[in-house]
Amino acid sequence: MKLAMIGLGRMGGNMARRLAAAGHEVIAHARTREAVDEMAAAGCAAAYSLSEAAELAAPQRIMWLMLPAGAPTSDTIDALIPLLRSSDIVVNGANSNYKDSVEYGRRLSQHGIRYVDVGVSGGVWGLENGYGLMIGGDEATVRILTPIIRDLAPHPEKGWVHAGPVGAGHYVKMIHNGIEYGMMQAFAEGFDLMRQKEEFGIDLAAVAEAWRHGTVVRSWLLDLIAGFLADDQELEGVIPFVADSGEGRWTVNEAVELGVPAPVLTIALHERFRSQDSDGYQYRLLAQLRNAFGGHAVRRSDD
Amino acid sequence: MKLAMIGLGRMGGNMARRLAAAGHEVIAHARTREAVDEMAAAGCAAAYSLSEAAELAAPQRIMWLMLPAGAPTSDTIDALIPLLRSSDIVVNGANSNYKDSVEYGRRLSQHGIRYVDVGVSGGVWGLENGYGLMIGGDEATVRILTPIIRDLAPHPEKGWVHAGPVGAGHYVKMIHNGIEYGMMQAFAEGFDLMRQKEEFGIDLAAVAEAWRHGTVVRSWLLDLIAGFLADDQELEGVIPFVADSGEGRWTVNEAVELGVPAPVLTIALHERFRSQDSDGYQYRLLAQLRNAFGGHAVRRSDD
Repeated sequence: MKLAMIGLGRMGGNMARRLAAAGHEVIAHARTREAVDEMAAAGCAAAYSLSEAAELAAPQRIMWLMLPAGAPTSDTIDALIPLLRSSDIVVNGANSNYKDSVEYGRRLSQHGIRYVDVGVSGGVWGLENGYGLMIGGDEATVRILTPIIRDLAPHPEKGWVHAGPVGAGHYVKMIHNGIEYGMMQAFAEGFDLMRQKEEFGIDLAAVAEAWRHGTVVRSWLLDLIAGFLADDQELEGVIPFVADSGEGRWTVNEAVELGVPAPVLTIALHERFRSQDSDGYQYRLLAQLRNAFGGHAVRRSDD
Repeated sequence: MKLAMIGLGRMGGNMARRLAAAGHEVIAHARTREAVDEMAAAGCAAAYSLSEAAELAAPQRIMWLMLPAGAPTSDTIDALIPLLRSSDIVVNGANSNYKDSVEYGRRLSQHGIRYVDVGVSGGVWGLENGYGLMIGGDEATVRILTPIIRDLAPHPEKGWVHAGPVGAGHYVKMIHNGIEYGMMQAFAEGFDLMRQKEEFGIDLAAVAEAWRHGTVVRSWLLDLIAGFLADDQELEGVIPFVADSGEGRWTVNEAVELGVPAPVLTIALHERFRSQDSDGYQYRLLAQLRNAFGGHAVRRSDD
């Protein structure tokens, strides 16, 4: 199969590599010349502009976007429209909001261009192990893409799902990430409860490693935890700031819109906000309020 | 090695079977004659009383208790004391509260009897796959038990950890279960958010199966979910009542005692309480209160 990979960051670059290695004809394009040259060295065809990419991808163009969500993706879709013909396919493999994805599909369909959204999981490990793929789009278009999907996935028959119509791929990926937030927070709380039980002197790395076998909590996240705790249990060099990528927020907003209770996913997200809050205004207000009604001491920075 | 397995329920019975199959001399005792006879048929030595079990286990007695936490375990320890000699070993493999475990160790040590607490994970799958084992006790005693532990574990070198002194085994098992509550709740919320997104008609079984490969949320719990959703996505025959076994409560109490934030583990536990509450008093009070201050309609059972 022939396809153009647009966006060659950590995800797009490795996916292009995996597909080229599997024998597909991959046209590589990114904004920077260096990124394109690097992929050319890895066996892809270089495209230094979007129009060059579209030219090289003819006749049945498959333009696979791996760009940051929001404006970069939306603008590139707009730029692609005049370059594509009816029945060409735009695949959006970025972490777009599923609502944007539905809108992109609508926008492209007005020009007869087909659209498929693909939620991609696997991060930096995907190049070697394959990517989990959650796909939204019509049956016929997904069928055209299947040879590519089978080679991106961990196994031709496993690790990918045609989840539903346009939008469903990104929706399922969003929920996947929401669940991931909850699982991560559960592990973080549990390991801290063991670390702070000082009288037992628990070796967290040994526990994590043992839990990987035969227990209920065994999981890929636990494998990762065991991996880095083996090198460093205290994590003292890590600043306690946890970023959030947007998917967690969308999941919680979706719970609100649907009126579906999702307290753990919500708390896990808010814990990330808490970690991002160096200001501590809520705690300052609470301390001051305890002082106001009970005369309780307030710790002051000038003490 | 020779050991007496006291308590032949789902866990103790299968552990006795696994050890007998590995070539250990297992003396089986339970309160009911039928349970003992069943294990005798499976290659264990039958002991119809605690004293018979203690006799058969001589000279270096290892009495492995797999009894319900609380009184059944505590009473059996009391009953064992006169039957055992100095340096005999009592192993408590039940889901005891780690504080009880510390107390049992103290009680037995007054008679020179050694005590080891073992948190056991693996449920009904352990017979075949082996059990995750978290062990608390002194180094020398744990060393004596190691041949047994290696054969209970999924692999001689994997899936078991000497976590610390007496109590540490049950502490680590408690935290394991607390994390399990959080992970389970995260999955439950995520799958419900997909189910209730009716416009996408998402096949939950297909998503669960796909997620098992290449994604961040892959885990043994997800394997189980994929297994039963493949047969039945709607789960209509399952009453929405989730029991809690005590370990979740202990984890949350421990967080309070240590002053360590554990909001996700706490919420996951309270969601189980919520599922157990058919009374709905909180919601009745809230509905009535909305009515009281805003005149909002209350749904009444006689409407």
